Amino acid sequence: MSSTEGKPIECLAAVAYEANKPLVIEKITVEPPKTHEIRVKILDSALCHTDAYTLSGADPEGLFPCILGHEASGEVESVGPEVTDFTPGDHVILLYTAECGECSFCKSPDTNLCVAVRSTQGKGVMPDGTVRFKNSKGEPIHHFMGCSSFSEYTVVADVSAVKIDKSFATDKAALLGCGVTTGYGAALKTANVKEGSSVAIFGAGAVGLAVAQGAKARNASKIIMIDTNPNKKTWATDFGATDFVNPLTDLKKDETIVSKLCSMSPDGYGIDYTFDCTGNVQVMSDALMASRRGTGVSVIIGVAKSGEVASIRPFFLVTGRTWKGTAYGGIKGRSEMNQLIQDHKDGKLKLSEFITHRRKFSEINEAFHDLHQGDCLRTTFSF
Amino acid sequence: MSSTEGKPIECLAAVAYEANKPLVIEKITVEPPKTHEIRVKILDSALCHTDAYTLSGADPEGLFPCILGHEASGEVESVGPEVTDFTPGDHVILLYTAECGECSFCKSPDTNLCVAVRSTQGKGVMPDGTVRFKNSKGEPIHHFMGCSSFSEYTVVADVSAVKIDKSFATDKAALLGCGVTTGYGAALKTANVKEGSSVAIFGAGAVGLAVAQGAKARNASKIIMIDTNPNKKTWATDFGATDFVNPLTDLKKDETIVSKLCSMSPDGYGIDYTFDCTGNVQVMSDALMASRRGTGVSVIIGVAKSGEVASIRPFFLVTGRTWKGTAYGGIKGRSEMNQLIQDHKDGKLKLSEFITHRRKFSEINEAFHDLHQGDCLRTTFSF
Repeated sequence: MSSTEGKPIECLAAVAYEANKPLVIEKITVEPPKTHEIRVKILDSALCHTDAYTLSGADPEGLFPCILGHEASGEVESVGPEVTDFTPGDHVILLYTAECGECSFCKSPDTNLCVAVRSTQGKGVMPDGTVRFKNSKGEPIHHFMGCSSFSEYTVVADVSAVKIDKSFATDKAALLGCGVTTGYGAALKTANVKEGSSVAIFGAGAVGLAVAQGAKARNASKIIMIDTNPNKKTWATDFGATDFVNPLTDLKKDETIVSKLCSMSPDGYGIDYTFDCTGNVQVMSDALMASRRGTGVSVIIGVAKSGEVASIRPFFLVTGRTWKGTAYGGIKGRSEMNQLIQDHKDGKLKLSEFITHRRKFSEINEAFHDLHQGDCLRTTFSF
Repeated sequence: MSSTEGKPIECLAAVAYEANKPLVIEKITVEPPKTHEIRVKILDSALCHTDAYTLSGADPEGLFPCILGHEASGEVESVGPEVTDFTPGDHVILLYTAECGECSFCKSPDTNLCVAVRSTQGKGVMPDGTVRFKNSKGEPIHHFMGCSSFSEYTVVADVSAVKIDKSFATDKAALLGCGVTTGYGAALKTANVKEGSSVAIFGAGAVGLAVAQGAKARNASKIIMIDTNPNKKTWATDFGATDFVNPLTDLKKDETIVSKLCSMSPDGYGIDYTFDCTGNVQVMSDALMASRRGTGVSVIIGVAKSGEVASIRPFFLVTGRTWKGTAYGGIKGRSEMNQLIQDHKDGKLKLSEFITHRRKFSEINEAFHDLHQGDCLRTTFSF
């Protein structure tokens, strides 16, 4: 039994008080975990575009004040009543997509969209409707995506974490909490990329490069990365792309990115699997149109701006293309995470290579700046 | 050897000279079949909305003059060189979706979109680039959808017909040439409806009712038909629907067709399989939104107006819905047609019940009028 068990913990957290304002690093109080909750000491956390999206105020469901952060690993400090899967000292990855194992979605082999804590998670509270965070004035602070990893300690539902081996590096583990798993899973599970197939990936960020890793793991014969930043070509190649197309410079007159990609497909009929990792709705349509007549699958991964719609001439669907989307790569976080770790150990899935920046937690506001410089895949913080 | 083999045949045909004008029934000349072509005496033909769509001028690829009609059965009159699969006297169903068995699409189990004759078919000519029809002035007349069944005789590519047993009623056989196969196949192949699932079908025309037949054949537990024409409720029930919703009269205040359908699904999360059989792009979006979170599949069958786009908030795809389309129900016309005929014999697939109107060929222009009266599924002509 730890000395803190059952007691509130005072620690540092980065609180988002307002949209589009810097986070405030300050002392907060983290209450003990309640029934089916665990309190976790964060070991490593990374910054993801979704954190920046919510902080920007563009997320209509964003709630303030809150503690952002959802891509993280940690050590269980204490557990609440009725927790059976964790004991203090366990290492975990936080899961913004929970897995209860009991709802109809968990029981389906075709989806990872567990609903156990969905409604309260979306409201920034724990399943009992209350929060575990308060600031020094005693004001409550919302949870975020069921994780809130920009804090030295956090509380999550027990269905929102997966236990991992203590020998596994916690900075690598943190990356599996969102972007890398999303991209890799999109290729392996959502699209189910087949050996020898062609793949096109729009957007060479962390998610897109993880898609390339998944496509390479499945031995796709052509992996085309599309990005308007020419500096990303080296990354693309390093992560498995066989081709790189910059739509700003690599298109001939009268060529579109769609016609260019179709011309690069083995028989001209389009690419077997295409992925949008940009969140740009025009790119989503292009990705669908560039997918193969008859059998092409196009997967939306990027998060569109609020209120935006993706549009398509129905002809492109009627002629055999499939439009899908993915959340967390279709990965069931508790039952399938250890396979991803195994894939990493087998050399199929890079992890450390995604960490381009390492910062102190006190520099978290600079990390939001890093994200948009074009030379950053992931900034991680060690606590 | 028939007395006409190798010679031009003079016969009656209904020629579409101009968009939005009545067809002209007149004597035309049908040339003998060339290599890999067969000349067919039409026995029964039905009128489909696609014929009306092209005649209306709305089809940007419509070519005039042409001989419309593509839902038909007939008897092989003669065969051209290198035809090995047919002999004179064989009964056939014409296939606007060919099956060559050799292209990459035919070899894929996942699509029926054979490309063997696709490019010339779209240009209203036979695979050698010429036509087999001319009028009494010697002017060439275009083919239509590789079939042109509004003629006593036609010529089609040998990959564009399937041989059927002579004991099978030719009026029923004609219906398998388009709408019924499209709807039934959309349920069985494109969506692959599972036993016990929920199904919603927008549009209770021939295609929609055939979807209901497919859903019933798969033992779906709930089959909801949506149509604004209350008179279609009886048909819906007869063809397998368990529920009928008229969006004009059956929605409560603040209810949309999407929320209504979700509320009718077993757990409120949406319908397992939804089908658009209307061609209305707003309905296509509604159908996708009404499909089940996590696992729902929505299939577009209807043909949208030229230039129209279907739009969706990417959220609906990212949360696990799949948007697909289908042409000819995904059915490979030559290798899979006999299974459909068997399904009919086994009582799973109604055919005669789709024939609401029977007319003489000379009344073909009235049949276009029938199609829009709301009491017509199919008008057939016997030749």
